[in-house]
Amino acid sequence: MLPDTIIEKAVRNGMKTLTEAKSKRLLANYGIPVVEETVVQTESDAVGRAASYGFPVVLKALGEKLTHKTDRGLVALDLRSESEVRDAFHRLNAAAGQDWEACLVQPMVRGKREFAAGFFRDLQFGPVIMFGLGGIFAEAFKDVVFRMPPLSRIDIRNLVDALVCRKLLFDFRGEAAVDVDQLAQVLNGLSRLAAEHPCIAEVDINPLIAKPDGRIVAVDALIGLGDETCTTGDGEMSARSCGDAEAAIQRAIDKMVHPRSIAVMGAKRQVGKLLSGADLFKRLQEFGFPGRLYPVNPRAESEIHGRKAYRDLFSLPEIPDHVIVCMPATFVPDALRDCATVGCKNIHIFTAGFKETGEAEGLRLQAEIEEIAQCGGLHVIGPNCMGLYVPESRTVTWPEASTTSGPVAFITQSGGHARDFTKFASSRFGIHFSKVVSYGNALTLDCTDFLKYVARDDQTRIVLMYLEGIEDGRTLFDVVQRTSREKPVIIFKAGMTDAGVRVAASHTGALAGSENIWNAFFCQSGAVRATSLEELAALTQAFLHLEDCGGRRVAILGSGGGISVNAADACTRSGLTLPVFPPNLFKMAGESISTAGNIVSNPIDAHKMFFDLPQLGRMMKHLSDGSYVDMFIVSLQLDWLYTDSGRDMNYMEGIATYIATEGKAMANGKPLVVGWRQFLDIPEVNHLTHRIREILLANGVPVYEGMADAAIVLSKLAGYHEFRRQS
Amino acid sequence: MLPDTIIEKAVRNGMKTLTEAKSKRLLANYGIPVVEETVVQTESDAVGRAASYGFPVVLKALGEKLTHKTDRGLVALDLRSESEVRDAFHRLNAAAGQDWEACLVQPMVRGKREFAAGFFRDLQFGPVIMFGLGGIFAEAFKDVVFRMPPLSRIDIRNLVDALVCRKLLFDFRGEAAVDVDQLAQVLNGLSRLAAEHPCIAEVDINPLIAKPDGRIVAVDALIGLGDETCTTGDGEMSARSCGDAEAAIQRAIDKMVHPRSIAVMGAKRQVGKLLSGADLFKRLQEFGFPGRLYPVNPRAESEIHGRKAYRDLFSLPEIPDHVIVCMPATFVPDALRDCATVGCKNIHIFTAGFKETGEAEGLRLQAEIEEIAQCGGLHVIGPNCMGLYVPESRTVTWPEASTTSGPVAFITQSGGHARDFTKFASSRFGIHFSKVVSYGNALTLDCTDFLKYVARDDQTRIVLMYLEGIEDGRTLFDVVQRTSREKPVIIFKAGMTDAGVRVAASHTGALAGSENIWNAFFCQSGAVRATSLEELAALTQAFLHLEDCGGRRVAILGSGGGISVNAADACTRSGLTLPVFPPNLFKMAGESISTAGNIVSNPIDAHKMFFDLPQLGRMMKHLSDGSYVDMFIVSLQLDWLYTDSGRDMNYMEGIATYIATEGKAMANGKPLVVGWRQFLDIPEVNHLTHRIREILLANGVPVYEGMADAAIVLSKLAGYHEFRRQS
Repeated sequence: MLPDTIIEKAVRNGMKTLTEAKSKRLLANYGIPVVEETVVQTESDAVGRAASYGFPVVLKALGEKLTHKTDRGLVALDLRSESEVRDAFHRLNAAAGQDWEACLVQPMVRGKREFAAGFFRDLQFGPVIMFGLGGIFAEAFKDVVFRMPPLSRIDIRNLVDALVCRKLLFDFRGEAAVDVDQLAQVLNGLSRLAAEHPCIAEVDINPLIAKPDGRIVAVDALIGLGDETCTTGDGEMSARSCGDAEAAIQRAIDKMVHPRSIAVMGAKRQVGKLLSGADLFKRLQEFGFPGRLYPVNPRAESEIHGRKAYRDLFSLPEIPDHVIVCMPATFVPDALRDCATVGCKNIHIFTAGFKETGEAEGLRLQAEIEEIAQCGGLHVIGPNCMGLYVPESRTVTWPEASTTSGPVAFITQSGGHARDFTKFASSRFGIHFSKVVSYGNALTLDCTDFLKYVARDDQTRIVLMYLEGIEDGRTLFDVVQRTSREKPVIIFKAGMTDAGVRVAASHTGALAGSENIWNAFFCQSGAVRATSLEELAALTQAFLHLEDCGGRRVAILGSGGGISVNAADACTRSGLTLPVFPPNLFKMAGESISTAGNIVSNPIDAHKMFFDLPQLGRMMKHLSDGSYVDMFIVSLQLDWLYTDSGRDMNYMEGIATYIATEGKAMANGKPLVVGWRQFLDIPEVNHLTHRIREILLANGVPVYEGMADAAIVLSKLAGYHEFRRQS
Repeated sequence: MLPDTIIEKAVRNGMKTLTEAKSKRLLANYGIPVVEETVVQTESDAVGRAASYGFPVVLKALGEKLTHKTDRGLVALDLRSESEVRDAFHRLNAAAGQDWEACLVQPMVRGKREFAAGFFRDLQFGPVIMFGLGGIFAEAFKDVVFRMPPLSRIDIRNLVDALVCRKLLFDFRGEAAVDVDQLAQVLNGLSRLAAEHPCIAEVDINPLIAKPDGRIVAVDALIGLGDETCTTGDGEMSARSCGDAEAAIQRAIDKMVHPRSIAVMGAKRQVGKLLSGADLFKRLQEFGFPGRLYPVNPRAESEIHGRKAYRDLFSLPEIPDHVIVCMPATFVPDALRDCATVGCKNIHIFTAGFKETGEAEGLRLQAEIEEIAQCGGLHVIGPNCMGLYVPESRTVTWPEASTTSGPVAFITQSGGHARDFTKFASSRFGIHFSKVVSYGNALTLDCTDFLKYVARDDQTRIVLMYLEGIEDGRTLFDVVQRTSREKPVIIFKAGMTDAGVRVAASHTGALAGSENIWNAFFCQSGAVRATSLEELAALTQAFLHLEDCGGRRVAILGSGGGISVNAADACTRSGLTLPVFPPNLFKMAGESISTAGNIVSNPIDAHKMFFDLPQLGRMMKHLSDGSYVDMFIVSLQLDWLYTDSGRDMNYMEGIATYIATEGKAMANGKPLVVGWRQFLDIPEVNHLTHRIREILLANGVPVYEGMADAAIVLSKLAGYHEFRRQS
């Protein structure tokens, strides 16, 4: 029987699983090595078959209703003689009782190493391949890694590296290393099976035994069937219609990002103390939106904030490029119906109170507006979000935003994060933005749509994302992977713990997903992982200013013995290496650094350098020219410099200027960052650090508080460029 | 043979190991269950013994030279019949060749779960017990946990919790949970064996098989012998002489901490720009040392900084309580000889250039001064360190130290950290110090000596330590454990990676030790673990101001949906729990919080509360009175409050005051901290945050930047009090 026939028949018969024998036949068809086996009905056939395989053999009871065979005593291993086979046959037959259909005879596969492989379908990410420790300890160790199909060579190498039990894949107690080509064949076979048979819900091969010669073979396997139909659909046609829809979405986003006119439904004269929808109109005005602005309010007075007010969309003199809806939730469905009628397709719903409340009324309202949006072909940002911030178009919904444009896009599910992070980045780090969007409950437009947009946007060099959850994870994965080959995509994924998942649901109604799958996402997509907004800013600095470093060897130059020890720990933990410089490296280069009170290998802890800056530069040049390292961290102990310079602010600024200009030149294109310690909390020093940060950043030298942050950032920079080089 | 005889004989014969059979006999004597076994010489004895045990059985070749038996084919498992035993006997005999001495027959122990247990002697920590996964996968998984003997019930429970394979200890695939009493018996037996037989270097029991009924049995074991003599020494006498020495050390430290007179050897008139030994005299003067100060310099002018100068110690009018040596390293040996001659026993050597350089000259000098110190009975802080900072005595060696005393002691190997951290803690957090000591290379006085001192010091409520390495780890462990029962000991241990270990050696010549053993140290001693100086300060705030929380359930009240999701992740990751409040909890209490735009379960994200502070207080009281939680985090979104209050600084301060007074009262003794976000980097807001921190801290409310820090600190606070309650 061909695979299709096997599966179709099982599905037609309402089966939830394929039998072990059928499962293995299907897997064999996909290039997965399975153990030889024969289905027998009688004791004498079992004995005959065992003899022809050669002892020892395995017997298993077969039957549609027989699952969890080991636990139910339906498997007999290591049968060494005819009499043992006979005994086992009777024992299994008795144990199976009336569920007995037949008996499976297999040669006993010897091998110390038992793995498990398979796939399942995730609600958000579709098919996910798994591989890891199998056998009876699988459950206790849960040492399994997930990956999105298909898997490249590098994916497979990374997968193996991520396993705790990875040593089992190499030479192991007299058994040969696992055949990696064959492992790739198994995982690729599973990928194809998943792609070609949507009605297969899951495959579980366990054990997949590695034989002493390193060859692997599936000894037991179970294929679970799902509710999907077996047809794979007309891919070509749906791709084209999908392409049309996508183009429409991209045009809609483009229009909202560059609107010539905006209507605000729910604009009010009275602006309250706390941020509310009523303020949005005023915000656009204050931010200097240069296009046509229409306040719309059913109880409209003649004007709102100096502009002629309209009772409804029908009264407007034009169809606006963008409509912002900030009326109470119960009014939103009617507002959307008006939009659809008038032909306003591009809408931002600011209003909250939908599915994120988890309450019946909110869920009902969300379902209602979803239907209106779909029927009307509306493109909706939100609901429950802050919408767009585009400095170039003077579009924003919160107060005190910077009007400066920059090369960074930020796509965020949280509106609070949109508002706070952009201010943080611009006021502290001089990071400015091309396009920012807070998209909340993602009714029709989700992060992937915006990512596609900024991926093509020439003004965007770096993409940042804050995600709580996602519906179509697989498409996001594909788009991130594609985009990452061109520009860095730095993602802070929240909702990674049970409590986080729950709170994400009440914040943006988001389905947060499992940590294991997100690990696969980050490992395979090339996305740079951030774990906080602070780290998002730290990484952005690095990606803005630094080039590919080509390696992970770091030199640390600066002050502080304790700091040096802590820096060495931090770099090692982050995955950087600190090459040990030869003892006489600098002495030979004519530089004198006493070993008393200093550290001279790496880090180089010599406070004196900051009072002889050219020496610092020469040492950097020496390390750079000699290719001893791939990147530099200069450790500034600001409190010491402050005291030892006699509180000479000019001198301190001079140090920063030297590092940012001549020091940077000496690094010769290799990444250079500053990690500092400033512990003395007095206004004078706080002001100074602000100034020093400015000088460094203005010259493209990122600066971090503490060496740990510097180390983490450089490691992730290196990781991103490794991805780029490999893909 | 009695154990002592077995071991003595083996040591006398120069053996490096005991045979398997002897090892097991010895273990059995210490209450460790071992498999039944018989040593046989002939095939027929083997067959006879196998029959009497009952099949299946195991045969192993025995011989002094036969190690790594499995790899060499010297073990035959699962022999099911007389003929299999005969075959195996011949096979093993042939494989062993002329190393054959005898054959071991054992019943085959059935059991899916194989563990390993044993001990080894660590250079710093002495005997260390290990337990974890055994069998052939032990090497691949390295799932082993170390603990210091003896192990309490709680230690054993924590040990099991720390294993990845912990599920194997519970009901497992039809086999019963491992007998924990028996496991305790094994680990206690190992502890006693280690204590009573110093000449046993290591014990390795592997596998220790858990049988289907949950009973464990040692199936193979190897005992390694070391160079120690078998005598355990005269414990009583050495304890007494040790007690005398210890009392002398404590008196010496007390004298140095409260000196009436200090001589500075190497004091100079000229003070350079950078910190150097020459400045120390001036520092003491500037800090207002009220006692008698003697500058000593062989090339002494008549006076140095207004004090009469002396050519040498012999010219002084008295024997000073404390001598600080800051001459170049080569002069230090003679200076120490002078000290010994004159009878100055209490010395701080500031000078660097000793063993931390790793160079021959430095090592030689350190050895030389070590001998002088020992012969002269000197008590030395250093060399290569900043020495003492005692505000009360006006003793310090660095500039700009605070003169305010406080309840915190800080014992640190790094002088830079001493100087920086104390300024950081006092200027930013109002944390002040009782006694601070930087002890560098720890020639005679090490961290344990100082810890013993501050443990008894009434002015010290909290002890902080920064450690790079330690010689006598076991004594430190015991003292920390004892001290932790009375006051918190918070330790930042550095040098935890390969690079960190290397750099620690060049910083303070410290032997840093292995991460696994330090994990045991923290788990068992009650020490609170910090991973940076910043965290050390964060923890100190909490321990200064907060009481025992009695549990790990936290309520988060404040602003920001994204912040709430991130806070939930952070709390869960830190080991706190966020109970979900009943949906109508607050509504029933008469509080109205809309579900639109807010989160109402836990966290409670309702920005409006900060503009109706009594509501915030009432909700806290409700949660506290109803025992819904054990602790509170108030999340302050300062940027929003700043904007939404109309930049009203008084209002902002009022929020802080409310939280610090009425809010705190509502928490009713349960720990309350503030976690804030302040992203807008403008001087006005920076000043405000400084003020708000002051208000909160002045009222005993710790404050953290970001929820992650707040969560980590509260979790560690809870962990410390769990230790206190258990011990």
